[in-house]
Amino acid sequence: MSELAAHRVGRQRGRPPGRTNTRQDVLDAARRVFADRGYQHASLRAIAAEAGVDAGMVRHFFGDKAGLFRAAMELPVDPATILPVLLGPGLDGLGERVVRFFVSVWDDPVARGPFLSLIRSVAGHEESATMFRQFITEQMLGPLAAAIGRPNARLRATLVGSQLVGLAMVRYVVKVEPLASASADQVVAAVAPTIQRYLTGDVSDLSPPAADSAATG
Amino acid sequence: MSELAAHRVGRQRGRPPGRTNTRQDVLDAARRVFADRGYQHASLRAIAAEAGVDAGMVRHFFGDKAGLFRAAMELPVDPATILPVLLGPGLDGLGERVVRFFVSVWDDPVARGPFLSLIRSVAGHEESATMFRQFITEQMLGPLAAAIGRPNARLRATLVGSQLVGLAMVRYVVKVEPLASASADQVVAAVAPTIQRYLTGDVSDLSPPAADSAATG
Repeated sequence: MSELAAHRVGRQRGRPPGRTNTRQDVLDAARRVFADRGYQHASLRAIAAEAGVDAGMVRHFFGDKAGLFRAAMELPVDPATILPVLLGPGLDGLGERVVRFFVSVWDDPVARGPFLSLIRSVAGHEESATMFRQFITEQMLGPLAAAIGRPNARLRATLVGSQLVGLAMVRYVVKVEPLASASADQVVAAVAPTIQRYLTGDVSDLSPPAADSAATG
Repeated sequence: MSELAAHRVGRQRGRPPGRTNTRQDVLDAARRVFADRGYQHASLRAIAAEAGVDAGMVRHFFGDKAGLFRAAMELPVDPATILPVLLGPGLDGLGERVVRFFVSVWDDPVARGPFLSLIRSVAGHEESATMFRQFITEQMLGPLAAAIGRPNARLRATLVGSQLVGLAMVRYVVKVEPLASASADQVVAAVAPTIQRYLTGDVSDLSPPAADSAATG
């Protein structure tokens, strides 16, 4: 990140000759190719060609396609790193760990920035939505569904995503009170049971109302 | 709606003299004033002045400020009409009725259009987010919270909103499978218990995991 920042400062002062801007060229090429072809059909080779560099150079800088995508979108979180951490203690309590982590990232103004940009881009542009859908499916929803290991695992994973995206929209984008100012603990207490039910509870039968949801009418 | 459509056709053929375009002028003025001042601080009087007409004329066409906002945003649903219908049978089963109604509107390609535009605008523009936050708070979340009549009623209402907005984002905007293609009944079965818990269940304590969420790790 600091390497990237330093690079940008250098860039503002005029582009030096030679290969100094290779990293930035690759990121620019990646954004173009991901937008044109979607995440799924963009290849490291095509992005390298677009940037006019060797594919090995791209791998050297960014590892794999997912790493390049994260760098191009400036995402401060690596799903491939964080998912095993959250899943480590098992499915018990996973809802709480997921919500606590999600809120901790979004409550951080620095980390929030790129995610706000992403959600705006995804809501506003069809090609961004396609790109993000493919990335999130491969990098988060697929691995999460595999870890759930229950019927409807894919549906469960997308339901988890729906509550988290909606939380981001209402708390951080539209900023509706009192959810916008609720403490992290309040949000976890309210939302974690939802996520836990989507992960491990019953999602395919419409259960009778719980005892505390008595009719008033 | 048909009056509006007919009016637009007339407009494409050139603007006739006189007051024929009053309604469209008011809608255009309303969009400008709502965007400039937000929903809360826009008044019928200011919108009438912006359109160069009498405030009584605006009331004649659109009733009140909420009606004018709905017409300006082309929203096919009137919260003031639908909320009492959903609330009519009481809080019991309200989660199911809310999700079923929400999905029926969004599953309808014609009704979906204006809501897609709204969600894109709200995600992309700060002033749209402010405008929508004020409208939804006054017209939906406030009345819903009053009907809930329980501790944390406002928080409960915003939590309901968060799950519904997220459902719209994942199912209709980003279109992530299998949630995008799930039947209305599947979505209701999965999501209604979430809404019911936010409405009438326990949202302020982090309950121990349910019996069916046993640890695997």
